[in-house]
Amino acid sequence: MSTPSPTSAAAALGTVGNGVEHLPYGSFTAGDAAPRLGVRLGDHVLDVAAVLDLAGGNVSAAAREAADSPSLDGLLACSKAVWDEVRGALQAAFLDPARTDAILATAVPLSDVTLGLPFTVADYVDFYGNEFHARNVGKIFRPHMEPLTANWKHLPIGYHGRAGTIVPSGTDFPRPQGMRPEPEGPPSFGPSRRLDIEAEVGFVLGSPVPQGRVPLHEAEQHVFGLTLANDWSARDIQSFEYVPLGPNLGKSFCTTISPWVTPLAALAGSRVAPPPRDTPLASYLDDSDADPWCFDLQIEISLNGEVISVAPFAETYWTAAQMLAHMTVNGAGLRAGDFFAGGTVSGPERNQRGSFLEICWGGSEPLTLKDDSEFTFLRDGDEVSMRATAPGPDGSVIALGECTGRVLPPANS
Amino acid sequence: MSTPSPTSAAAALGTVGNGVEHLPYGSFTAGDAAPRLGVRLGDHVLDVAAVLDLAGGNVSAAAREAADSPSLDGLLACSKAVWDEVRGALQAAFLDPARTDAILATAVPLSDVTLGLPFTVADYVDFYGNEFHARNVGKIFRPHMEPLTANWKHLPIGYHGRAGTIVPSGTDFPRPQGMRPEPEGPPSFGPSRRLDIEAEVGFVLGSPVPQGRVPLHEAEQHVFGLTLANDWSARDIQSFEYVPLGPNLGKSFCTTISPWVTPLAALAGSRVAPPPRDTPLASYLDDSDADPWCFDLQIEISLNGEVISVAPFAETYWTAAQMLAHMTVNGAGLRAGDFFAGGTVSGPERNQRGSFLEICWGGSEPLTLKDDSEFTFLRDGDEVSMRATAPGPDGSVIALGECTGRVLPPANS
Repeated sequence: MSTPSPTSAAAALGTVGNGVEHLPYGSFTAGDAAPRLGVRLGDHVLDVAAVLDLAGGNVSAAAREAADSPSLDGLLACSKAVWDEVRGALQAAFLDPARTDAILATAVPLSDVTLGLPFTVADYVDFYGNEFHARNVGKIFRPHMEPLTANWKHLPIGYHGRAGTIVPSGTDFPRPQGMRPEPEGPPSFGPSRRLDIEAEVGFVLGSPVPQGRVPLHEAEQHVFGLTLANDWSARDIQSFEYVPLGPNLGKSFCTTISPWVTPLAALAGSRVAPPPRDTPLASYLDDSDADPWCFDLQIEISLNGEVISVAPFAETYWTAAQMLAHMTVNGAGLRAGDFFAGGTVSGPERNQRGSFLEICWGGSEPLTLKDDSEFTFLRDGDEVSMRATAPGPDGSVIALGECTGRVLPPANS
Repeated sequence: MSTPSPTSAAAALGTVGNGVEHLPYGSFTAGDAAPRLGVRLGDHVLDVAAVLDLAGGNVSAAAREAADSPSLDGLLACSKAVWDEVRGALQAAFLDPARTDAILATAVPLSDVTLGLPFTVADYVDFYGNEFHARNVGKIFRPHMEPLTANWKHLPIGYHGRAGTIVPSGTDFPRPQGMRPEPEGPPSFGPSRRLDIEAEVGFVLGSPVPQGRVPLHEAEQHVFGLTLANDWSARDIQSFEYVPLGPNLGKSFCTTISPWVTPLAALAGSRVAPPPRDTPLASYLDDSDADPWCFDLQIEISLNGEVISVAPFAETYWTAAQMLAHMTVNGAGLRAGDFFAGGTVSGPERNQRGSFLEICWGGSEPLTLKDDSEFTFLRDGDEVSMRATAPGPDGSVIALGECTGRVLPPANS
């Protein structure tokens, strides 16, 4: 990419983390207007279709039509060639001094817009791809058994979550209620007593495949971009319900994602190899000769503004390409807007864990906060934010869209 | 309902199982036309919006607009008042001799149409609500443990399935592939060796609720109608993957549903009380004073035309109203097009079981077919059909839409 001219829109609006090398997409509403697909440059948002129009005849009809949408839905239905074309045209426009005035005239400050869900979520799968997390949870939930189940190193374990309760950052939600185990006697119904977070990276899919599969080397054609995700979890409800069919009500009340989707292309410089594999893999999962599909992302987790943990995504054992190959190897197709999260991100240290369950070891090791209070699980009013940065091209920085939510008191029983 | 006049469309077109008291909805395509919301009367389909137009000013703009749709999506977004209005207007039109000629002029024989998915599936939850099935599966999968898990009688266990692979009856699919356990050593990758069915009843939801809950007594406002469902299951893939997060690839390749959605109103005479409860329930699930939410449906399961089992849905322990109350009690909202299935239907006898896993007891008790061959799990080319009838008003019969699919050989590896 060329260096921005001092008079380009990129130079005028770009900021560290959100320069012209990033350009994440979102769905924004300004005033009474209908939602539109927007692209972020610094602390401003621009209507993608309007910027493409500045490129005149240089953009294909397919790209123009896909961008003229309330969200990413139009683009996700297209192929990677169209994704690349749109991103290239946006970058060219932002770098061209001749178009600066026109662009600045349409830029809207972020403070003046509302951000919705960046795409319509089709199916949502949540994986369990981080070995530190899986071992920690195994030790806490099933203390008398081998922490990793026998299948864990043979395939990326995952389950389908509720697509309809995925919300954009900034959406508060009431504390979930459900059936909680009691130390003695039958379970009781009531508000969760062990409300937790899971810090994850989400992958937004497009370029539909009516019937599987997506081999490892084709993942690039279908992973449109990345978000942060907080898979809020009610551990007590989950622990009572999850045998034998997996989590349901303990997770289905709310999942928060970034309002901005970072294009995969923006993270080209952040891709790293996954941890070494110690178990032979079936050929559809064998990535020993594949491109690296881990990302050098550090997820900073804050509780009411106090940083609690910094979780290293690069420690995740299973890669996004493997998860996608697995999801489709049985013949299941992909739809535009399918979404999966890679699993709670944890590292080897306590302050690298991605859930309070792990940080406070099932509640037995409370955290002492800066105000000297002891903390284990979320209290009403608590706000959790996740942020992450990654290396971009030429020494730049990519700042993924923030993922924030607050716990409200339980709704009336 | 009045008796059809001999010159009404109801009398001219109605058949046993699909008379004017049934009127299921589907999405049909005739020739090169775009898909349309249709209603079935006997062996014909009629464009719902066109029939409503015959009622002239007697139909509200909301009802007319909702019906003018490629599928049920428009109606599902409306309230029950609109559902009732549309059904009432259709019945009045089909019973009115003055409109017979106009209706017959637009009726298309079923043999001339293609039927698609009757609605766009939002989230799909599959429950596990039948005690005979849960006990059988527990004994087969976990022979050394108590067959019912400790949670089973306290809440309806369920998990989210893949909405994007729900297909209408008549869609064939390749045998799924995945990681299969081996008697010794590591698992192997390949086509499922234990491909099975699950005979279920599905519930189509509408009248959205942005944030839960749907109490038992409000279920009537949100359950639009019923289908049959076959939750095809690769038992070997499922058994290797399902601990600790539940089924995924073993189920996500295909789920077949009826192309016709039977309105709840058509089954008013089929509603029966569930089996007696032997465990006290939390108040949100306590249906001791609620309307009966089981249905007197017998699901006939045929393998290549040979009837193998007749599964009694009325044996299902958890009701549809309880499942809906449970799904939303944690605050999760409902969207138009949400869909859940009640779980594999089995009765106490071998020829009342709803899966081959149970009928053939995990493969150890093969079935002898009419041609004297032995059968355990599905072979390439096998076709499975499910049909069900229920008592309708005034001695009529309601025939739910058939649910059929065929196993093709595995796709190329």
